[in-house]
Amino acid sequence: MMKYSRSYNFSAGPAMMPEEVLEEIAAEMMNYHGSGMSVMEMSHRSQVFQEIRDQAEADLRKLMEIPDNYKVLFVQGGGTVQFAMVPMNLMKNGLACYVETGAWSKKAIAEAKKYGDVQIVASSADRNFSYIPDCSNLNIPENADYVYICENETINGTTYHQLPNTKGAVLVSDQSSMFLSRPCRVADYGLIWAGVQKNVGPAGMAIVIIREDLLRDDLPQFVPTYLHYKTHADSDSLYNTPNCWAIYCCGKVFKYLLKNGGLAAQAQRNAEKAAILYDYLDKSEFFTGAVEKGDRSLMNVPFVSPSPEQDAQVVAAAKAAGFDNLKGHKSVGGLRASIYNAMPREGVEALVDFLRKYEAANK
Amino acid sequence: MMKYSRSYNFSAGPAMMPEEVLEEIAAEMMNYHGSGMSVMEMSHRSQVFQEIRDQAEADLRKLMEIPDNYKVLFVQGGGTVQFAMVPMNLMKNGLACYVETGAWSKKAIAEAKKYGDVQIVASSADRNFSYIPDCSNLNIPENADYVYICENETINGTTYHQLPNTKGAVLVSDQSSMFLSRPCRVADYGLIWAGVQKNVGPAGMAIVIIREDLLRDDLPQFVPTYLHYKTHADSDSLYNTPNCWAIYCCGKVFKYLLKNGGLAAQAQRNAEKAAILYDYLDKSEFFTGAVEKGDRSLMNVPFVSPSPEQDAQVVAAAKAAGFDNLKGHKSVGGLRASIYNAMPREGVEALVDFLRKYEAANK
Repeated sequence: MMKYSRSYNFSAGPAMMPEEVLEEIAAEMMNYHGSGMSVMEMSHRSQVFQEIRDQAEADLRKLMEIPDNYKVLFVQGGGTVQFAMVPMNLMKNGLACYVETGAWSKKAIAEAKKYGDVQIVASSADRNFSYIPDCSNLNIPENADYVYICENETINGTTYHQLPNTKGAVLVSDQSSMFLSRPCRVADYGLIWAGVQKNVGPAGMAIVIIREDLLRDDLPQFVPTYLHYKTHADSDSLYNTPNCWAIYCCGKVFKYLLKNGGLAAQAQRNAEKAAILYDYLDKSEFFTGAVEKGDRSLMNVPFVSPSPEQDAQVVAAAKAAGFDNLKGHKSVGGLRASIYNAMPREGVEALVDFLRKYEAANK
Repeated sequence: MMKYSRSYNFSAGPAMMPEEVLEEIAAEMMNYHGSGMSVMEMSHRSQVFQEIRDQAEADLRKLMEIPDNYKVLFVQGGGTVQFAMVPMNLMKNGLACYVETGAWSKKAIAEAKKYGDVQIVASSADRNFSYIPDCSNLNIPENADYVYICENETINGTTYHQLPNTKGAVLVSDQSSMFLSRPCRVADYGLIWAGVQKNVGPAGMAIVIIREDLLRDDLPQFVPTYLHYKTHADSDSLYNTPNCWAIYCCGKVFKYLLKNGGLAAQAQRNAEKAAILYDYLDKSEFFTGAVEKGDRSLMNVPFVSPSPEQDAQVVAAAKAAGFDNLKGHKSVGGLRASIYNAMPREGVEALVDFLRKYEAANK
């Protein structure tokens, strides 16, 4: 049992954070490290906050082994702002390639079309985004500014287990729902961005990791100052007041991950947790996983019961038993268990135990 | 003495929050109202969070007596994003009038010039922004889309004690450093925006109060989806994941203000606090207030000692005595005491006591 009577929260995001991290944050609320104030009250220009910011970046760099020629940016506005910033900043030739694997890549595509030509070079729309299309031999024009993927589709529960062959073009990845869930070779990407509210900390910030040569001075006049990546890169993300609280909380999570073996150890824990759920789903005669086996996400696990009516009954029964937010996204229905880094193994075991009993009683 | 050994923090923002509010937030960290989770972990689509959001908006509407034909928006990105959103959304005729009263109006002007013609209809640049120019008979072209003011200049310490005569044009006001410091007749404005990190809660969100008829569908294609006011208005600021934490914390502060007599009572307390400091400065033979008396801010009080060297010595001595962040903004120097809503009267009294003793020992 948990110390605070906390729910097992399977939300797709915002989502669970490590209990130990929340305890530290609560303990530091009235007086952070002798500063006499909460982190929420600190001037973003003060030394005490600068240290929090710098330590957070240093710990993230260590966790992901980010090469020196990449900048780490903390930007407000979430994915919706990134959908615009990516094409606004990276479309030099006015042509970008997108892989369409679900709702989030579709949103990115729609926004990018405002700023140039978009070629959809692969899509899994034909089978309701239940798989990742073959990206080994894409038709990438030579003048393409970048190739964009959503590396883990939160709604559909798919993930790339192998990166696309971009044929030399810059790879841009939305890692929101898998950020820090496994080791990642940053040098394979030109730009990685992630909303932190799924696998790291509180909503209200995206982290952008961008190769320095992609930072540009010569953007069109209509690009707002805030939406220049260079604005943030040149100021250590302190051009204006950042989301200081999110930087602080994410920094705590980075420390927590480092202390617990880094991303390799976290990936191992995530693989074990996901296996517990997928193994059950594969054997179940009541529930069915919604994604092709080879493309399954370890973070977001969508599945269905025999009917939408029964889906709703399972969600309600689960909620009553202390399992929160198991309803699938409104666009696809069914159920979805998001089992991010901070979901304890016991949470997944308890869920499977619940589903097994539910199946026995209802099949 | 304060219960937690907290500093008197005179930061221009982020800045102090009410101690009682911070205590509640800390107490709710591990399990908000029986939900089994922290507010940071809640799905923004969950009922428990929807109630937090709706209550925050309802309480703000009550506090400010916001008329029904105004929308309240919670938007990420701070002032820098608002500097772009205002002209992007409101420039229909491509012409706007700005009053230039300091660094923040200058930034707003620079950004607006990207999107149309800007006429500076009044300025206090001639005397280092130490006053508010006469705005009773401005030269406003008939086709001006709006008149923009920074109602309280955080750096220079000036405030409008009377609103400009816009001759029928829409008035847009940046209220960041005076938001909720005194009653405000919302109907006098077309749009009010405020970064919440000065007088309300944690950094990472601006509140926008906009008259419904100013929401437009026909913006230029280059305007990012996130930067349409209508995106937020049509979705109750839940188009994408908002800064849930800031909404929650600001909501607590709204409740706190309502409980303590609303904005009229807060204005009274603020006037008394400011009078304690200004009265001392007016009598001092060592320190001098930097702003013309009639245009003084009740929130940000800049002042100088006889020399920049002595300014620095005062700041250091004050810091050692537990008074934080008294250094003036780097662009103007000197000292600045920001005494927002949450600065207790005792904090101002203690500061004046310190300054008086410093003067006696050093004049």
